[in-house]
Amino acid sequence: MPLDAPVMTLTIAGSYAHRLDCMVDPALTFDDPELIARLAELVVRFGANVQPGQIVSIGADVGKEALTREIAAAAYRAHAKFVDVSYFDLHVKKARIEYADDDTLEYVPPWIGQRVLALGEERAARIALSGESAPGLLDGLDPVKLGKDLLPRVRESGTVVNAATTNWSIIPGPTRAWAAHVFPELDAEAAWLKLSQQLIHILRLDEEDPVAAWTARGETLNRAADKLNERRFDALRFVSEGTDLTVGLLSTSKFLAAQFETVGGIVHRPNLPSEEIFSAPDPQRVDGVVRSTKPLVLGGSEILGLEVEFAGGRAVRIDAEKGADVLRANCEKDEGAARLGEVALVDGDGRIGPLDTVFYDTLLDENAASHIALGMAYKMCVDEADHDRINESEIHVDFMIGSPEQVVYGVDADGAETPVLAGGAWHL
Amino acid sequence: MPLDAPVMTLTIAGSYAHRLDCMVDPALTFDDPELIARLAELVVRFGANVQPGQIVSIGADVGKEALTREIAAAAYRAHAKFVDVSYFDLHVKKARIEYADDDTLEYVPPWIGQRVLALGEERAARIALSGESAPGLLDGLDPVKLGKDLLPRVRESGTVVNAATTNWSIIPGPTRAWAAHVFPELDAEAAWLKLSQQLIHILRLDEEDPVAAWTARGETLNRAADKLNERRFDALRFVSEGTDLTVGLLSTSKFLAAQFETVGGIVHRPNLPSEEIFSAPDPQRVDGVVRSTKPLVLGGSEILGLEVEFAGGRAVRIDAEKGADVLRANCEKDEGAARLGEVALVDGDGRIGPLDTVFYDTLLDENAASHIALGMAYKMCVDEADHDRINESEIHVDFMIGSPEQVVYGVDADGAETPVLAGGAWHL
Repeated sequence: MPLDAPVMTLTIAGSYAHRLDCMVDPALTFDDPELIARLAELVVRFGANVQPGQIVSIGADVGKEALTREIAAAAYRAHAKFVDVSYFDLHVKKARIEYADDDTLEYVPPWIGQRVLALGEERAARIALSGESAPGLLDGLDPVKLGKDLLPRVRESGTVVNAATTNWSIIPGPTRAWAAHVFPELDAEAAWLKLSQQLIHILRLDEEDPVAAWTARGETLNRAADKLNERRFDALRFVSEGTDLTVGLLSTSKFLAAQFETVGGIVHRPNLPSEEIFSAPDPQRVDGVVRSTKPLVLGGSEILGLEVEFAGGRAVRIDAEKGADVLRANCEKDEGAARLGEVALVDGDGRIGPLDTVFYDTLLDENAASHIALGMAYKMCVDEADHDRINESEIHVDFMIGSPEQVVYGVDADGAETPVLAGGAWHL
Repeated sequence: MPLDAPVMTLTIAGSYAHRLDCMVDPALTFDDPELIARLAELVVRFGANVQPGQIVSIGADVGKEALTREIAAAAYRAHAKFVDVSYFDLHVKKARIEYADDDTLEYVPPWIGQRVLALGEERAARIALSGESAPGLLDGLDPVKLGKDLLPRVRESGTVVNAATTNWSIIPGPTRAWAAHVFPELDAEAAWLKLSQQLIHILRLDEEDPVAAWTARGETLNRAADKLNERRFDALRFVSEGTDLTVGLLSTSKFLAAQFETVGGIVHRPNLPSEEIFSAPDPQRVDGVVRSTKPLVLGGSEILGLEVEFAGGRAVRIDAEKGADVLRANCEKDEGAARLGEVALVDGDGRIGPLDTVFYDTLLDENAASHIALGMAYKMCVDEADHDRINESEIHVDFMIGSPEQVVYGVDADGAETPVLAGGAWHL
């Protein structure tokens, strides 16, 4: 995707515009049908930007039926040809880890990936709901076994993303169980209210026109990306307590805001919220030590206090206070699984960081802070000449390394360093 | 499947046998984890007869998670290679009927049927849960539209059944909503208790050894089928109030009890409960009028007071007090959709009929009374010479026509009539 792609003006179709009126009731939760409808319309009309005649897949955990159904209804109102809902059940995964024969845990029936490839061939829209449905359910299970079963993620998801054949969007799918995990000090209803209110704010659903608010934020991030790209740094260096990591960039590495365009020209927002600019690093040139600044939930397992050491691009040491084995098992998946596929910068103007909440959800937590990802890289971040140099892997595991105290330097080929992001502010 | 296939002695594996101990607590409901586990083991070990290394698909409505998860766990304990759960959401179907463009309602993405065919190629086991999850949800929607969307049924299910490549079983998946619909005169908890108790009885879960009880019942039905088959009737005639229907049989039509065997020799029970013997009739020779004796729930829509007139094998008139249009739309699906694919006899010794309960679930209601089915026929009911003569269709819609007052006659080619089933008793 070229950086100078025109920012399309995306408007919610007239008859639904009234549903995006200002909504700032301090008692509002995601039990409210109007609020659910508002989020559903946002992801269908703006996030995924569903086009008439498209097939729309929705991936959600069981427990998120209300939002899933409303998204399906919104998609059909947007003249979707078919809405194909896949409910994932973490309890079934738990049963597998507990009872299945060890040598079967990496097996995935071929039709699961084939369906994803077919969604690409059909030029479908894809919507997914993040957020925990059953926090802690996998606690205490064998981390090595957990690392073998990556579902619901399949490698074909990366293939389809890089082929840019589907317009897709991930949004949070709030649940009470998730709220209780995020705010354990509150009672159940208070936690649910607080998670709802924070998500309303984060998703700009408290704006009179959320689409306009997201469009404006996207333009700010595009400008930051443009300026960073003009400098053509050779590497970025992240420095904060416990972290001194240098991430090499390829000669054509471009930073992008999360506004994608399909091969057919459908502009979409792959993540809502998104506060990041991201690129594909040089998978051979990553060195130093990095400490995660937020917990990571990986395939249902929690990883806390993560520290990773890189040498020559590879993660050569993975330690954690909890869950290190799960990430280690992920990193053994294939040759690229221990190398970086993404480096992303998040400034202090986003709405997530200031809340100082740990959401245990990568979609939210990665947009609170600068982050890196092990595994698959996004092809649109480099020119075709570098398509063979970016990282390839079945996995794509983001983890958060940024903080307000962190300084990110741009490093020139001669070693000269220039601050790029410090105290949450751009220095470009 | 030859009728004289040896009845395999199927035993629950030793370590699970204790779970099938006698269970006759009159306060027991399907909230009880032990009871759920007992049903799960029954369908995995006996109904579907899951073999080590098999993929197991489970089809269930959302709202049936507890039983679904326990079946998954039981399947993994039986050394399943992978358990692939598909949760169907009737609310999403409702959204489609309400909002989707009319000309898209018959569309089904290719991967849904391809998955079913792949389950056959992989020689998988298939388990499905019947019973209502959201009774009345589709009430009031356009019946013509409803008739166009047959999901979750796909035509490939019939293909795989007739190829005998999968060992499969359908069992009831009880829900509170279903109980409330079946027993509207009771309060919610009393209805739930009563449905649970009736299902425990029907499923022989109140027997010390449910497998032995089912095996004995199967032998009784096998003997009735053998005797009926020996007579080589040319047709069956059903006579009761409002019904006088003659159903022609093919020269190789065989009645079978619902114990199937895959091409690989895996004996399984496609329906639990099953109280029927069934065959494939001559789709060209069905004449007369038939009145349904139980309500029919078709793709979530209720059809009450159904009356169908047949001439030359075709349903030429379909009337009903409620829902006739839904069945009419089904019967326009293809050439075979208005012809019979099944004729089945149910005696008075089964456990469902005497309860005099309308379950709004074909799996249960069809086993309360003799029935016929529009649409697809089962190939194993005729010799290969007649494979081209039995009915073919995308649909398979059972409806109940029997009652204790009904007399079923066997008709010889010369017109002579012999009672076969009267007052619920075999006359063979």
